[in-house]
Amino acid sequence: MSRVSRQSGILFVLSGPSGAGKGTVCQALMKQMPQLCLSISMTTRAPRLGEKDGVNYFFRTKEEFKSMMEHGELLEWANVYDNYYGTPRKFVESKLQEGIDVLLEIDIQGAMQVKKHYPSGVFLFLIPPSATELQARILGRGTETDESFKQRFGAARYELAMMNQYDYVVVNDVVDAASERIQAIVTAEHCNVSRNLYLLTEW
Amino acid sequence: MSRVSRQSGILFVLSGPSGAGKGTVCQALMKQMPQLCLSISMTTRAPRLGEKDGVNYFFRTKEEFKSMMEHGELLEWANVYDNYYGTPRKFVESKLQEGIDVLLEIDIQGAMQVKKHYPSGVFLFLIPPSATELQARILGRGTETDESFKQRFGAARYELAMMNQYDYVVVNDVVDAASERIQAIVTAEHCNVSRNLYLLTEW
Repeated sequence: MSRVSRQSGILFVLSGPSGAGKGTVCQALMKQMPQLCLSISMTTRAPRLGEKDGVNYFFRTKEEFKSMMEHGELLEWANVYDNYYGTPRKFVESKLQEGIDVLLEIDIQGAMQVKKHYPSGVFLFLIPPSATELQARILGRGTETDESFKQRFGAARYELAMMNQYDYVVVNDVVDAASERIQAIVTAEHCNVSRNLYLLTEW
Repeated sequence: MSRVSRQSGILFVLSGPSGAGKGTVCQALMKQMPQLCLSISMTTRAPRLGEKDGVNYFFRTKEEFKSMMEHGELLEWANVYDNYYGTPRKFVESKLQEGIDVLLEIDIQGAMQVKKHYPSGVFLFLIPPSATELQARILGRGTETDESFKQRFGAARYELAMMNQYDYVVVNDVVDAASERIQAIVTAEHCNVSRNLYLLTEW
């Protein structure tokens, strides 16, 4: 058995304020690192045309979902428009045990729940390069009134203060550059001494 | 002023057991990352032909060296065959303040001294890929008797146990791969949240 296979996988949680570009960076990263496994969410909403259970989502009834909540089988969950969404612990942990790294892209509230239930995850905070750039990104959507812009921008500034709950800050100036920084973090974390102490017993 | 220039440089200390290949990896890394500044040692030995003060070494008298030792101006020092060698704190710190990362390649004893005097450094432990490979490397030098081989191999095993004093373990299986892992660690460390909290005051 090679050394690499002795290390279990690592859960990387990609989060950050609204407008940081989590989805875009996540897509770029999955192209650059196909060996990463993207976490699959569980939901109580009905499958849409073409969606498959265990691929797009794990589709479950509300009763099943609530039972999993009560039994601590979700790393995080939220209720959105009367449907539940969550991250099943078992799927993530089985991948990690196989030595596969898992990537979870999630908002800040979800990330804080994951941190509580799975503190050995690595928490990455993606941010826009500047306040000016964030303004431009929010306005660029072209859907904001003055009031809603102020709300979104204010919320993003508030969310930014959550930075100190994370392990790493990744500035999303250029998507591919941000993705490469995350790749570097994945490599570095596998070199972290706490993940390599088993080597001491091998010599 | 750009954000990057607001972060100070980081001191990376590359160390590890005898036979790990520190020098070779260090050379490869300096080629891949010319923006890294290699720490220049101070010594009391006489300059050899072509060696220049402030380039190969800082050449100093024993009196000057001892005065610096006594005034805490060295991050580490050692006496080898009646000459002193050490790492001047001022050179390292001035580079870090300019925002330049500094690389220091040093044996384990020296690294432990640096850790004591400069705990905010990042400490990398380079190791051979396996005990078998270490044996091969030691024997490959062709200069070892049975006895000296046993001594060297035993010392390396003993040194390996120092791993848990370090931040990262880098397996030197292939020199360029090891160097790339170190590059990733450099990138990741700059993303470490503790080095980016100043961003909170900028928004």
